[in-house]
Amino acid sequence: MTDTLIDTATYVDRSGTRHPLPDAAAEAQVRGDDRGHVFHSWSAQALIDPLPIAAGEGSTFWDYAGNAYLDFSSQLVNLNLGHQHPDLVAAIQEQAGRLATIQPSMASDVRGELARRIAEVAPGDLDKVFFTNGGADANEYAVRMARAVTGRRKVLSMYRSYHGGTATAISLTGDPRRWANEPSDGSVAHFLGPYPYRSSFHASNEAEETERALAHLEQVITLEGASTIAAIIIETVVGTNGVLVPPPGYLQGVRELADRYGIVYIADEVMVGFGRVGEWFAVNHFGVTPDLITFAKGVNSGYVPLGGVVISQRIAAHFDTVSFQGGLTYSGHPLACAAGVATFEVFERDGILERVRDLGTRVVEPRLRAMAERHPSVGEVRGLGLFWAIELVADAATRAPLVPFNASGADAAPMAAVAAACKQAGLWPFLHFNRMHVAPPLVITEDELVRGLDVIDEALDVADGYVAG
Amino acid sequence: MTDTLIDTATYVDRSGTRHPLPDAAAEAQVRGDDRGHVFHSWSAQALIDPLPIAAGEGSTFWDYAGNAYLDFSSQLVNLNLGHQHPDLVAAIQEQAGRLATIQPSMASDVRGELARRIAEVAPGDLDKVFFTNGGADANEYAVRMARAVTGRRKVLSMYRSYHGGTATAISLTGDPRRWANEPSDGSVAHFLGPYPYRSSFHASNEAEETERALAHLEQVITLEGASTIAAIIIETVVGTNGVLVPPPGYLQGVRELADRYGIVYIADEVMVGFGRVGEWFAVNHFGVTPDLITFAKGVNSGYVPLGGVVISQRIAAHFDTVSFQGGLTYSGHPLACAAGVATFEVFERDGILERVRDLGTRVVEPRLRAMAERHPSVGEVRGLGLFWAIELVADAATRAPLVPFNASGADAAPMAAVAAACKQAGLWPFLHFNRMHVAPPLVITEDELVRGLDVIDEALDVADGYVAG
Repeated sequence: MTDTLIDTATYVDRSGTRHPLPDAAAEAQVRGDDRGHVFHSWSAQALIDPLPIAAGEGSTFWDYAGNAYLDFSSQLVNLNLGHQHPDLVAAIQEQAGRLATIQPSMASDVRGELARRIAEVAPGDLDKVFFTNGGADANEYAVRMARAVTGRRKVLSMYRSYHGGTATAISLTGDPRRWANEPSDGSVAHFLGPYPYRSSFHASNEAEETERALAHLEQVITLEGASTIAAIIIETVVGTNGVLVPPPGYLQGVRELADRYGIVYIADEVMVGFGRVGEWFAVNHFGVTPDLITFAKGVNSGYVPLGGVVISQRIAAHFDTVSFQGGLTYSGHPLACAAGVATFEVFERDGILERVRDLGTRVVEPRLRAMAERHPSVGEVRGLGLFWAIELVADAATRAPLVPFNASGADAAPMAAVAAACKQAGLWPFLHFNRMHVAPPLVITEDELVRGLDVIDEALDVADGYVAG
Repeated sequence: MTDTLIDTATYVDRSGTRHPLPDAAAEAQVRGDDRGHVFHSWSAQALIDPLPIAAGEGSTFWDYAGNAYLDFSSQLVNLNLGHQHPDLVAAIQEQAGRLATIQPSMASDVRGELARRIAEVAPGDLDKVFFTNGGADANEYAVRMARAVTGRRKVLSMYRSYHGGTATAISLTGDPRRWANEPSDGSVAHFLGPYPYRSSFHASNEAEETERALAHLEQVITLEGASTIAAIIIETVVGTNGVLVPPPGYLQGVRELADRYGIVYIADEVMVGFGRVGEWFAVNHFGVTPDLITFAKGVNSGYVPLGGVVISQRIAAHFDTVSFQGGLTYSGHPLACAAGVATFEVFERDGILERVRDLGTRVVEPRLRAMAERHPSVGEVRGLGLFWAIELVADAATRAPLVPFNASGADAAPMAAVAAACKQAGLWPFLHFNRMHVAPPLVITEDELVRGLDVIDEALDVADGYVAG
């Protein structure tokens, strides 16, 4: 025995077999390459220290030291079927070996099959799919379709929303990520959505919130000028900006306003489509049919970049004889589509939608409600399926948020402390402003889910320490 | 024997083995799914009839009837290593089995390795890479970096250019694809680039064209206001809009103007990077160092969607302590990066750059020049490496183009007839306005290259039939 003898770090695959992880030299190489040459999203490059990840399996990923993290963020809320799902891996490997790519102007078996599968589960008469590389360009092209069809230019989108990083998408966005990017598309106007816990409309219940939020939206339409408005875009359940589930009747009201004023209704389901809230498309839960639905992420769990727009017959018909002015080299990429087709097969065979609804109502909701009772820092819990928010407050009576809007540095310390407690206990959390979100892979086992919620329960003790009084 | 006995359609893999193709019922399914549910790029949906493709191998792809097409377009000029390259397929299959995806905020071995490999072949001090999903978002984010660094907003780009389909990218674009999308980003102004065959500057030789084109650019800078201009973006060799190779000294002049006026110089190498003109980056051929280089397509032959921005140390340093305001879920996607790393290995092992230069100068150029002598319809041939244009004219003396700018329908009939002749003879051509481009996979065999050029030679007889006199 020598003092250099250490245990080799390991990870565990889904069969239960333990495998060694690459050694410290490999980790040093990854860190060196990353810090030397990789420029990261939404970051000050010298102030970040990206964690090298060595392996992933199901709902867990491992760093090079062998630390396991239960992923309650599904990466960026895209990993709906977890890491290394054997069906998705096999579909990619098979398609790569058969025909990795073919240009978008050709017809491709797997591209057509995925489009048909999506059309089959989309609401109403939405039955054509324009494929993109991700969510941002899906929203870009949905807006372009709406402008072409209506001959109008303006788009209404919500404060507290995220629609992507490219020029039109970031203009639509209603969170601080757009601030440094303005002015971009000057023809976007923002309105306030329903948020019963912090009602902008001084409403005292959900029905009142719905009624007043719709009156507000109609007022904005009137003041902006209905004849100038091409589209209203709404995340069916607001994602990163709060897991804001629309109260009953709100989306129906949006649909009615859109119809009344000849406006295209775009549902952004990049984050909440494909099972996150227990439906193929979240609008199915609410019984509304938008004109366009945008998607990405869950369509193939992000194993291969893919996004798209599902298009109603009315919108599509406009482009029967008029050329659609948009496109991209990788539209309907076969490798990406193959992983999408496999996603449909797994969802159907394994009853993913049913299990999301079951785990959400039977496991997540009651436990979060119990935490809300127990922890003075919890102002509200809300959500649907496997998509929940825990909103933290410094004072339950005033509902003052635990950290200020868009806080950073010392101002954000309480949330950083909560995050550290989670990671210390082996859980990778999703935090945004004064909220922690619960968004695990949809294939998470009940044991893992309970274990993760227990970690959060304990981490909330840290948050409680910051509560006034 | 019965009258229903027919030969089964087949394709041939790279080992020479013949395989059966799916049957007519499979083709009908593909056509049905496509026409029923796939919405295509840049098209009037009822006026297209996408060809179902069943297989691809190297420089050839097959339809379901077993017709083989030699691909002189490299799909959308992305398939630099041809269909089903075994090294790229293996890299994708291996990475899919190991770790298909990990979020961009983590460090990943293959993401870091590809960034390092790109930095090693990039000119000057360009040594950091921001990965995107494709070329459009690469240009979007390059412009955003330039705006952040300079504090200015305006961007100058060339007429006769293509920079992608999303809002900023289509605004930069200088071809008709932008027309129906305007106004989008109002802070883009277009200038004229060098084009000796059709000089906008009444120049009589390349040196004069360079001098006058630079004087024009400086005049536009002055009139637009240097203090308002964040960036100049130029395709190093203009791609779809004409394979316009800049005359000697032009890009050096652009670099000097950018330096003189504090403007960021962005080289768009989405189409011409990664070997198309016999260099890793086309700027290497011209000996200039831009501040930012955008890439996509050839980085991994489009086997997995990938693009990015290579960033100089000066630009990157701005974001050391200031957050870069852009990002995307699939930035630095491991599966895409694995195919990129494999691309580097193949290029180096097989001497791809050397073979492109050799085939370009020894096979393509002399044959195209001979065609130009022989065919009255050929106004000019021009190019570099395995990227050439044959510009067709109705009258060699006046240089009147064979079809009008942006022609369609009956006006475009002569070019449609040339295309039909190529396809009839088993060659898939790249046509744009009055030009045919030669852009085969970089792995094309010399025999295939000669055979394809012979097909073009014969098809030019069709073009000759439209020449005046």
